[in-house]
Amino acid sequence: MRFTKMQGLGNDFIVLDGVRERIALDPATVQRLGDRHFGIGFDQLLLVEPPADPRHDFRYRIFNASGEEVEHCGNGARCFLKFVRDVGLTDKTELAVETARGVIYPRLEANGEVTVDMGPPALLPAQVPFVAERDDIVHPLEVAGRVVGITVVSMGNPHAVQLVDDVDTDLVQTLGPLIERHPRFPHKVNAGFMQIVGRDEIRLRVYERGAGETLACGTGACAAVVAGIRRGLLDATVRVHTRGGGLIIAWAGPGTPVLMTGPAATVFEGTIVL
Amino acid sequence: MRFTKMQGLGNDFIVLDGVRERIALDPATVQRLGDRHFGIGFDQLLLVEPPADPRHDFRYRIFNASGEEVEHCGNGARCFLKFVRDVGLTDKTELAVETARGVIYPRLEANGEVTVDMGPPALLPAQVPFVAERDDIVHPLEVAGRVVGITVVSMGNPHAVQLVDDVDTDLVQTLGPLIERHPRFPHKVNAGFMQIVGRDEIRLRVYERGAGETLACGTGACAAVVAGIRRGLLDATVRVHTRGGGLIIAWAGPGTPVLMTGPAATVFEGTIVL
Repeated sequence: MRFTKMQGLGNDFIVLDGVRERIALDPATVQRLGDRHFGIGFDQLLLVEPPADPRHDFRYRIFNASGEEVEHCGNGARCFLKFVRDVGLTDKTELAVETARGVIYPRLEANGEVTVDMGPPALLPAQVPFVAERDDIVHPLEVAGRVVGITVVSMGNPHAVQLVDDVDTDLVQTLGPLIERHPRFPHKVNAGFMQIVGRDEIRLRVYERGAGETLACGTGACAAVVAGIRRGLLDATVRVHTRGGGLIIAWAGPGTPVLMTGPAATVFEGTIVL
Repeated sequence: MRFTKMQGLGNDFIVLDGVRERIALDPATVQRLGDRHFGIGFDQLLLVEPPADPRHDFRYRIFNASGEEVEHCGNGARCFLKFVRDVGLTDKTELAVETARGVIYPRLEANGEVTVDMGPPALLPAQVPFVAERDDIVHPLEVAGRVVGITVVSMGNPHAVQLVDDVDTDLVQTLGPLIERHPRFPHKVNAGFMQIVGRDEIRLRVYERGAGETLACGTGACAAVVAGIRRGLLDATVRVHTRGGGLIIAWAGPGTPVLMTGPAATVFEGTIVL
């Protein structure tokens, strides 16, 4: 089986062409391929298939290394678009792609980066979910004997964003795990630490729910910019610096989707005997 | 550049053919290739080159993912032999291979496994090094308020082997790091936990110096069998079960080399643009 290894901000994928080749994957095979010592290794496996509805371009399925099929991932969608163009499955610059949570429309930008619609954020505490008596933009949260001010946002997954003077702080490792499991977040939460560099630029680190700190969290970048805009600190288009690289996040306000633009790179091509 | 991804007991490698292709590697390139998200990912990169001395078959160089050139690795040497035969660089079943620590003679067995000479063990405490007043086979070591009996062995790197009733014990995680950094081991130590199944069979886990528990430690398997033979518990040829798979270790006694036999597997073939 042929595969292409790709990455976006260090989030890494193998991409399989299920249009030209018939590919049947059971969870055990995905697990075996995903093992970084005994297999190829990846965060997620992306499977390109023909669309169910002929008005769309492709169907796009995503599997975790554990073998489980999962929903939309922003970094993966960028790699998906680069892949289908690179291997000649399409020459379009904007695609209609069927995913487990609906149709998405990734778009190639003039600079080679890809923009993905991440959907509108949910802003009410109950939607995150976050236990709060009122719908405030900044909520005081008691953690480790201090009070920090957080803004809560759901991008399909829950985020709690706080401001820090300098993102190179120990707080990510000390407060991160305590916020992640704070009792006011019944489904746990991704804890974001945002340093405002200017009205169009932030630095961000995210302590991810169940994963700890990662190189870059696409939904975390979206949530941080939404939080910064709601607090009146950021303009509608913001450059986000993460440890894995840079993203542009744009949001026009409540009810509109968050647009994420970033890089996608091919790392190598391979063949493996299944 | 073409490469082959291989593994032996979960210890994983990329192997490069520097005989047919001229390959120049600087440490930054090795680091980039070794990154599991932005590159290919491996424990070690194996570079096959023509021998300096025409009486030998190949030169074999080994680089860690950090870019540093390192010495002999048993799991890598098995993959090396399988690779040069698979790609048609030789059809010999026993090779004379130049390494950073001298010539080694890996040999293909009838069952497809490969035997590698791991050199003779060093048994004196000062050679390990281990601080002891006498040269005993079993030394009492005080750790975490208890006394455990260890046998010390150097296979080029230091090992402290203890017996356990059942290798599925918490001791690997609780005692392992304390033994690793015990003040009586001035260069630290690999802590082995060996369950005797029979005179020709053991189960083994190793808490590795600087790495924590790994799937399989080749020198740890050698050290454990040497320790078991010295204690009178094992015969000269022993099957060792590790979490990464099985090895056969043979040792004829002091002054003779330890022979390690085990599997080597090709995982996939790839091409990457440098």
